[in-house]
Amino acid sequence: MRTATARAHPNIALVKYWGKRDEELILPAAGSLSLTLDGFATTTTVSLDPSAAEDRFTLNGAAASPTQSERVTRFVDLVRSRAGSSSPAVVRSRNEAPTGAGLASSASGFAALAVAAATAYGLDLDRADLSRLARRGSGSATRSLVDGLSIWHAGDDAASFAEPIDGPAMSMVIVTVDAAEKAVSSREAMRRTAATSPYYAGWVDSTAHSLREMTTACRAGDFTRVGEITELNALRMHAAIEACEPSIRYLRAGSVAVFDAVEQLRADGIEAYATADAGPNVVVISRPADAAAVAERLGGLGAVRVVGAGPGARLIPEEDCA
Amino acid sequence: MRTATARAHPNIALVKYWGKRDEELILPAAGSLSLTLDGFATTTTVSLDPSAAEDRFTLNGAAASPTQSERVTRFVDLVRSRAGSSSPAVVRSRNEAPTGAGLASSASGFAALAVAAATAYGLDLDRADLSRLARRGSGSATRSLVDGLSIWHAGDDAASFAEPIDGPAMSMVIVTVDAAEKAVSSREAMRRTAATSPYYAGWVDSTAHSLREMTTACRAGDFTRVGEITELNALRMHAAIEACEPSIRYLRAGSVAVFDAVEQLRADGIEAYATADAGPNVVVISRPADAAAVAERLGGLGAVRVVGAGPGARLIPEEDCA
Repeated sequence: MRTATARAHPNIALVKYWGKRDEELILPAAGSLSLTLDGFATTTTVSLDPSAAEDRFTLNGAAASPTQSERVTRFVDLVRSRAGSSSPAVVRSRNEAPTGAGLASSASGFAALAVAAATAYGLDLDRADLSRLARRGSGSATRSLVDGLSIWHAGDDAASFAEPIDGPAMSMVIVTVDAAEKAVSSREAMRRTAATSPYYAGWVDSTAHSLREMTTACRAGDFTRVGEITELNALRMHAAIEACEPSIRYLRAGSVAVFDAVEQLRADGIEAYATADAGPNVVVISRPADAAAVAERLGGLGAVRVVGAGPGARLIPEEDCA
Repeated sequence: MRTATARAHPNIALVKYWGKRDEELILPAAGSLSLTLDGFATTTTVSLDPSAAEDRFTLNGAAASPTQSERVTRFVDLVRSRAGSSSPAVVRSRNEAPTGAGLASSASGFAALAVAAATAYGLDLDRADLSRLARRGSGSATRSLVDGLSIWHAGDDAASFAEPIDGPAMSMVIVTVDAAEKAVSSREAMRRTAATSPYYAGWVDSTAHSLREMTTACRAGDFTRVGEITELNALRMHAAIEACEPSIRYLRAGSVAVFDAVEQLRADGIEAYATADAGPNVVVISRPADAAAVAERLGGLGAVRVVGAGPGARLIPEEDCA
């Protein structure tokens, strides 16, 4: 029985992925750029079990839901078809992200699964191949193959993978203002944005433009410009989503309170910039030296945790993931 | 010495005016629809004073600022040129809107000024003419010539005036969450939206579409649909503004708290819908029978005042506006 274990971390986009050009291949409408984090790891072991009737998937020691299991099986089917294998697998995954931290576990989850499954099934894939493969599980997983700052290129199947990009040092303060599960999933909201938001075309165009500006700012190590582009791109994503019919407002009063406080931090001379994924929680970037002060100032608005740049998905020695 | 006094009220748009096709003529990029309120009147007396060297403008008994005075003189110049007069005027205006209520006094101000000045200078204008004239002072003043629900047509100078439209009965609960003067004026924000927001074209198109839907809903007396269109159009306006570079966030945490509370009101079976002009304060529409309950529920989020449909700008017997 062949087995492999991999670990991956979530990433927070500075230029957001929001909208697909191709639903099946998960090709993004525009490129994006993110920081892979050094916390909230997902560790996944894939073990081939030719004698089993079907795949089995456990998450944090418990059987996963039928929806989760089906999504994992669809992904492992891709790996099996490339490997010419028909063997079912046992997939055991452990996720360190606290429920409701607002960190999509699908990015770390499919990045870890891509590395572990490719290895267990004997595929010989380089890092770009693994990034392309992870993409098929969840778009944002594409970027979690990369250490630290990661740029995911738009384009066709071959061109659409993530690779490292240099940039200024930064810390992220994650502010969890609401730990409840969101009412509308990212997948559904992304579809509704493309179908009903009058701002979707403008969003895609402006994001492609922002990514070019962000690339320049990263290469120049220009933290201020990176921060400005980050916050504007996040506001534009939420603006495009809020313009859906019916509207989806992920940013609630508690979320906007963090954006307001970050504006005040800047007025007080501490450079911080806010971003938020498809949910109420807010992530604030700052220079590493300012992170403690930022966390202190935002502590009254939610649970705060400071994180930095972490490694891309990789194999680790096998351990117990049950 | 000829003199005339007029009174006008502010209006709250259900389909917003945000963007000009022509800055000089103040032709809107799309039509809009509003309710003229029954409170916060502006009362203005215009008295010709041929012996004066220049116009004099007093606001609530005090000399107006140079910027305000210049704007009034530019408007009276329009009236003078049509009347073939060169007489300066004394303009005395009294505004009942409390400072910071978030009610643009320029709508009631220029509506009252248009009626009083046209009369004092002897122009014979019908209501559509007066609406066109008020437009030259401030776009939203166009609609304050009309009783209750008012639709302002886009189009060229001749076509762009407001007229009444039937609709369901409704009340408005004005929630003042922040009485401070806003940091970016509507005029500047409107210009920045047109110049830098990637969503401006989508905003203009979707507003024209929403106005057609709103017209149908009003004529059908369909309060629910009127409310849905109102809230979505407001969110889209703020989304287009937030997407500016640099971003302008008029809706602060306290504003979004009202949108959140209104969503909860609906979940609890009370039909209410939120809108907001270019500032932090929020206006909530409901059926008249629900207004007291809505005001009660929102009372913790700011100063509340319930208003209803009011009259369009009109002449009143002269009184002391000093």
